[in-house]
Amino acid sequence: MNIAFQGESGAFSEEAVLALHPNATAIASGSFEAVFEAVSSGAVDRGVIPIENSLFGSVHQNYDLLQERDLRIVAEIQLRIRHNLLVVPGSELKDIKSVCSHPQALGQCRSFLREHLSEAEIVVVYDTAGAAKMVSERADGSRAAIASAIAGVQYKLTAIAEGIESDHRNYTRFLSLARMDDAGSLNPERGPFKTSVVYAQRENIPGSLYKSLAVFALRDIDLFKIESRPLVGSPGKYLFYLDLEGSTEDESIQNALRHLEEVAASVKVLGTYPVGPIID
Amino acid sequence: MNIAFQGESGAFSEEAVLALHPNATAIASGSFEAVFEAVSSGAVDRGVIPIENSLFGSVHQNYDLLQERDLRIVAEIQLRIRHNLLVVPGSELKDIKSVCSHPQALGQCRSFLREHLSEAEIVVVYDTAGAAKMVSERADGSRAAIASAIAGVQYKLTAIAEGIESDHRNYTRFLSLARMDDAGSLNPERGPFKTSVVYAQRENIPGSLYKSLAVFALRDIDLFKIESRPLVGSPGKYLFYLDLEGSTEDESIQNALRHLEEVAASVKVLGTYPVGPIID
Repeated sequence: MNIAFQGESGAFSEEAVLALHPNATAIASGSFEAVFEAVSSGAVDRGVIPIENSLFGSVHQNYDLLQERDLRIVAEIQLRIRHNLLVVPGSELKDIKSVCSHPQALGQCRSFLREHLSEAEIVVVYDTAGAAKMVSERADGSRAAIASAIAGVQYKLTAIAEGIESDHRNYTRFLSLARMDDAGSLNPERGPFKTSVVYAQRENIPGSLYKSLAVFALRDIDLFKIESRPLVGSPGKYLFYLDLEGSTEDESIQNALRHLEEVAASVKVLGTYPVGPIID
Repeated sequence: MNIAFQGESGAFSEEAVLALHPNATAIASGSFEAVFEAVSSGAVDRGVIPIENSLFGSVHQNYDLLQERDLRIVAEIQLRIRHNLLVVPGSELKDIKSVCSHPQALGQCRSFLREHLSEAEIVVVYDTAGAAKMVSERADGSRAAIASAIAGVQYKLTAIAEGIESDHRNYTRFLSLARMDDAGSLNPERGPFKTSVVYAQRENIPGSLYKSLAVFALRDIDLFKIESRPLVGSPGKYLFYLDLEGSTEDESIQNALRHLEEVAASVKVLGTYPVGPIID
């Protein structure tokens, strides 16, 4: 199987690809759109994207792409985002004069950098794995990268400090996507299952959120996630992101979704997939 | 009135301070914790914090602080986050050899930088306003900062490109916080009102989300926001963030909150305040 992810080889998304599909070949892509495109066109079998982070919330851009394109979620995983300080073998903390990484990783490791590397120059690239690649290629002991453990292995660098992010409760949930006609059928032994849905409320109906949740509650279907997203430029209009307990092959879920269509302005099922593991 | 915000003079939070409290004195603070502390201790009258962004979701760190500390939300505002390229007067795009800003702002303006300033060196600071200050102090025409319009005015810089962020649907919602004993009483003429609540579900009760929402729906109280937040390390446990339509002086809201306490594990009211404007 060929699986597209956004970023360079060694990105956290590649870690997610290999955790989700251990024997697959991970294919680096330039953007989330490119990942969706590669799956849609059949250039790859699956695409892996981040969908939410425990500290920074939902990746609305990918929810938008899931709504616009007709792919199916077929698997999920939660991965701890652990940043390491990577150097060429033999180099030490005292040798480092510049640190290179993605802006967000630099922000997450700000306290560590202040405490240990306040004199170092900060170099920005738009990819943590790209930073590791650069340090490796230049083979210069005064340079360090902040990137994942897998990037260290990939580019033969040594981690001289591990888990240097300020907040360790940093987990990203990734989804694996397939074409509709390639999503396969659910293997009941792989359950329990989760079903992801996006729906829009009808306007001007007081209590319409409650009515839409009734379709699940009245059938004893539990929720893993609910989030309202205000539509910018349309005051009072919302989308709702739901993760339900159960599969679209369950009669109760089928009935509930039919009922939801009666009370909502629009409903889109993003997929049914096994509840995924948390990788620490 | 003295009002604390996180960041340096010219930060987006300062723009929010002045939009919320036009005649106030804005006081720069080093961290969100420092803003909460300054309000609690009486060193300032109000504190202004970001709580959610239209692209990047909720600021969970500030929700945590709102739960831990006993402050009250007394006002809100939504502000468009518009990044400008700021230079010393007389300098032009072709003169620029380095660009300085906060990692997140650099990320948001990545397409602009790639297209127009691909050769420029990127310099990271942890504050957009601090970047503007640095460019101003060095008075060097080859340097540019990415920061807010207010930072340009503050440090006497010229904006040679405005709104350079890739996604213009970028709005941040800010809250103004007061001490409990200084929150004042609601002026009914300033409504309509919004009430923010955080609550924890009781464990192992199927449909408990639905039951907790029933306390509002059965009283025709509408929601502006609902978001489930999984508690990292406690699978199956969630906090819920709710914004309700109405004030804690309304009998229906008082009854609903009393009812919520019956069905929830814990409830905290974060404040009642007038529904705020959107500043484009």
